[in-house]
Amino acid sequence: MDWKDNIEWETLDSGELKALLADIPLADLLEDWDSFSDEEAIRIFIHLDPETKVDVINELSNTKQETLLTLLSERHLKQLMAEMEPDDVTDFLQEMSPEIRKSVWDNLSDELRTETLFLLRFDEDDAAGLMTPRYLAIRGNVSVHQALQFVRRNAEKVEAFYSVYVVDELQRLLGVISLQELLGAGDDTIVKDIMDTQFASVREDTDQEEAAQILETYDLTSLPVVNSHNKLLGVITFDDIIDVIREEHTEDTYKMGAMTGNAGRYLDTSIMGMVKKRVPWLVILLLLGTVTTTVLDHYQASFLGMSFLILFIPVITQTGGNSGNQASTLMIRGLATGELHTRDTGKVLIKEIAIGLIMGIVTGLVIVLRSWLMPPGVSLFEALVIGMSLSFVVIFATVIGALAPMVISKMGFDPTVMSGPLMSTVIDVCGLTIYFETARRLLNLG
Amino acid sequence: MDWKDNIEWETLDSGELKALLADIPLADLLEDWDSFSDEEAIRIFIHLDPETKVDVINELSNTKQETLLTLLSERHLKQLMAEMEPDDVTDFLQEMSPEIRKSVWDNLSDELRTETLFLLRFDEDDAAGLMTPRYLAIRGNVSVHQALQFVRRNAEKVEAFYSVYVVDELQRLLGVISLQELLGAGDDTIVKDIMDTQFASVREDTDQEEAAQILETYDLTSLPVVNSHNKLLGVITFDDIIDVIREEHTEDTYKMGAMTGNAGRYLDTSIMGMVKKRVPWLVILLLLGTVTTTVLDHYQASFLGMSFLILFIPVITQTGGNSGNQASTLMIRGLATGELHTRDTGKVLIKEIAIGLIMGIVTGLVIVLRSWLMPPGVSLFEALVIGMSLSFVVIFATVIGALAPMVISKMGFDPTVMSGPLMSTVIDVCGLTIYFETARRLLNLG
Repeated sequence: MDWKDNIEWETLDSGELKALLADIPLADLLEDWDSFSDEEAIRIFIHLDPETKVDVINELSNTKQETLLTLLSERHLKQLMAEMEPDDVTDFLQEMSPEIRKSVWDNLSDELRTETLFLLRFDEDDAAGLMTPRYLAIRGNVSVHQALQFVRRNAEKVEAFYSVYVVDELQRLLGVISLQELLGAGDDTIVKDIMDTQFASVREDTDQEEAAQILETYDLTSLPVVNSHNKLLGVITFDDIIDVIREEHTEDTYKMGAMTGNAGRYLDTSIMGMVKKRVPWLVILLLLGTVTTTVLDHYQASFLGMSFLILFIPVITQTGGNSGNQASTLMIRGLATGELHTRDTGKVLIKEIAIGLIMGIVTGLVIVLRSWLMPPGVSLFEALVIGMSLSFVVIFATVIGALAPMVISKMGFDPTVMSGPLMSTVIDVCGLTIYFETARRLLNLG
Repeated sequence: MDWKDNIEWETLDSGELKALLADIPLADLLEDWDSFSDEEAIRIFIHLDPETKVDVINELSNTKQETLLTLLSERHLKQLMAEMEPDDVTDFLQEMSPEIRKSVWDNLSDELRTETLFLLRFDEDDAAGLMTPRYLAIRGNVSVHQALQFVRRNAEKVEAFYSVYVVDELQRLLGVISLQELLGAGDDTIVKDIMDTQFASVREDTDQEEAAQILETYDLTSLPVVNSHNKLLGVITFDDIIDVIREEHTEDTYKMGAMTGNAGRYLDTSIMGMVKKRVPWLVILLLLGTVTTTVLDHYQASFLGMSFLILFIPVITQTGGNSGNQASTLMIRGLATGELHTRDTGKVLIKEIAIGLIMGIVTGLVIVLRSWLMPPGVSLFEALVIGMSLSFVVIFATVIGALAPMVISKMGFDPTVMSGPLMSTVIDVCGLTIYFETARRLLNLG
């Protein structure tokens, strides 16, 4: 049973509602948010504590965000905005409708407005689009004691809290010192003597996925963003990087499902938006796939004489597609995680030939037994013809499935495009050729 | 050109090598590690600074780790182990061969051995398998000043540094205070008055993916792990959670590519290991796919009279598979990220019917034009028959593709299983039936 089933929202007064909501975990609240009516949602929202309000609004879909922001009174909107971080406000302003954008903008404090204006200058897909301007920066000639006093005075308003950045008078980044190192050092130590000068940083126009990989490799809590003059512009925190990793995963998954990669929420996207995302690939693959009609037309004389061959066309294309898909999935994922490089192509090829041979023999034997012993039933010789053809198709598909992403990656393109659907289409064409050619030779057809 | 192409490793003395390596970014070093010979690798490794050694060894594949550990002298091994965190040592001991395990174990300090023994009690896939025993715990009745002094004294040896945990005399977790709150508070404030008592925590046997979701929802740097008596066992840090998210992504990708989900590195897995990962699904899907032979056998009389129907079998199955795959990919990803819930099934159904209709009409028109105007060439009437059948197949596949993951998820199973390959197989069977049934009626065949 659900936590909210027993609650009669209407009968609770403000105090009771506040007390009740304070006990509900954020995750449960978010999980059930979509089931609230607009009236319930706004009533619940204004009774949340200020921090939870920010957490809730940042996690909602764009549609739900818009509804809430429209329904909030000016006073509540101002209070909410005062709690929000500038990078989240920037995302809001970039994604909302013009009316909401105006009312959000009108209710920002002067400080937040300046910070937001600064952030709006950058592209949201670049590293700079992820950064906060609320970080800790000091000069290198201060002592650890002075630095810690500065940290303590500013603790409440900082977002990127876990490292302190050392800059010169032109705001150029000279070094980084983690809070852990700072707290572990003696009070009289001078910061520039213990700061890290070999630190990771990214440029404002670095791709956000590259920023994610750097933060991961170095296990950082935050990553500084600098411009071409090495001037510190802002800092990216690990929680925004986790969002980038999830988004990247969604985009890869969509691409592997033969859709354009742009990761909008399903329920937020219109029907025509969804069609635009899906129809181009569907049509491209359809047109490529029609090459199979030419292949089949070419072998028509053969199979009309041996009509059992027709029965196994879908089995051949499907199994070929599956084995190619397995190999290409492994390569694409290996290349994406950096476990595989294009220079491993030779090793991969040898391994996949061996794997393809084994899987070809196994699937060949399975189809021989299945087609010989069970209905619709073909003769043993016919079953052997099917089995041998399938083996060849599986071996071929496995090797091509492994090679194609490696070659495409070597050519500098995104290997994700060679996954699933496109792979299957290519293998349909080649697989059917192998199938009919093998059968034709074994059966001595014309 | 590569950074290492100009370096003649043999001619450098120790000092030169050290200086050179200090300037090479970790990411570049890791990227090229596989291209070093064993001798080069060990020589480079022992000249890295101690922290980089730990970063490098943790990022290498198991095979490369084993090679390095085998080649390291006892003295170097001891030095390396002294720098490592107990959770990483535990991973080592769980994954290495017995000989390496023994030599690692023999070279651990007493402290590290005790910590590792404690961690080895837990399952590596549970939340407890990710935790470090090196966190900061204090009593609630101390002042902020005292707490900060404790933090500073222990800063160097702590791994989970960003929150301080408040426990009672039985080590039960009472509250959490982030370092940011602690540093922002006045010196004389008593910790228990400002600590957070509504904190997120996980149980020792919580699944690691659930732990990842909790850390993400609350944007935490670290997450405490407690047992059934609420005793604090350890703390999970965000960098280990990022690894879990990546691993989960890999497993999902493998499942969608019709393989078992276990995410071992490609180059580390033997040929038979790869076959075991791939052949079961290939055979299951092959056997399911053979239902298509029965369908085709059933309609054999029809298509032998109208042999143009045969030519389009692969186009029908492929396009049906693609449209079903698009819909199921969207549902599976939506359910995984929590954007979609099974209660949205109604909304999804209506939307997908509309999308399916549009995509069915578009693909139908495309195939009519393609098959009528281009070789092998069929008559306009035949092209219209193909087009209408394809439209029906696409509409059906889209709706089934969307519904299947929702229904499977509602039944409590993992919807990932309904992606790509299984979806295509199911749609092959139904799609061919729809195709031949439509054609039979339009052509008035028997």
